[in-house]
Amino acid sequence: MKKDDCIFCKIAGGEIPSKTIYEDELFRVILDLGPATKGHALIIPKEHADNLFELPTEIAAKVLPTAQKVAVMMKDKLHCDGLNLVQNNGEIAGQTVMHFHMHMIPRYESDGQEIGWIAGKPSQEELEAIKEQITD
Amino acid sequence: MKKDDCIFCKIAGGEIPSKTIYEDELFRVILDLGPATKGHALIIPKEHADNLFELPTEIAAKVLPTAQKVAVMMKDKLHCDGLNLVQNNGEIAGQTVMHFHMHMIPRYESDGQEIGWIAGKPSQEELEAIKEQITD
Repeated sequence: MKKDDCIFCKIAGGEIPSKTIYEDELFRVILDLGPATKGHALIIPKEHADNLFELPTEIAAKVLPTAQKVAVMMKDKLHCDGLNLVQNNGEIAGQTVMHFHMHMIPRYESDGQEIGWIAGKPSQEELEAIKEQITD
Repeated sequence: MKKDDCIFCKIAGGEIPSKTIYEDELFRVILDLGPATKGHALIIPKEHADNLFELPTEIAAKVLPTAQKVAVMMKDKLHCDGLNLVQNNGEIAGQTVMHFHMHMIPRYESDGQEIGWIAGKPSQEELEAIKEQITD
């Protein structure tokens, strides 16, 4: 199902042109217009889902196998030295278009990017309490 | 197959204890010891693969469906406001343990983290050239 006024529905469906590097029945993979690095791409399902929580399981099952195919293309053709997959859910997480997508960011020596976070140092007791809260 | 001297093989196999929040035949999901936020977890396949390139497709197909199950637990139990999935391949990409894993980082208002990158501004011609290079 497509959603009216969703730009990624229009891009995935081909109504809005994009730099497509891979396409199959379920997905369109396009170059990001504001790339972190050369070849930064987005895996976009053709069916609309706002985020990971709404994505049908059968489509979710195909995302990483699709990423694997494109990753091989990136390695073979761009000769990247590494790769980040990033998938954001919710504005607080940096999601700017509310249609599920996964970033594929090829990495190169000295590309100047740093994709990471500040690591906390919880105690074993604190971790145990969080585990209990999640699994309760 | 397990790999000798791989700490994540030992953790996934239960030889080294961890704060496990989900487990099934293929995966163990544990709390990260240096969490970005409360509930930061790692999806670790029990079978060894260095990275996305080496991960068997049938296991790759189960990663996001597993993330979906754990994401619901995080939302329900931790009441997070968003979620980042991050999967790093290669040292340059921030991979520190050479056994495939996916980070699940629950996000909260004012959690102080910023997981992103500096966006470039390539021209349409530059993007077209990169597309050609990848799809050639």
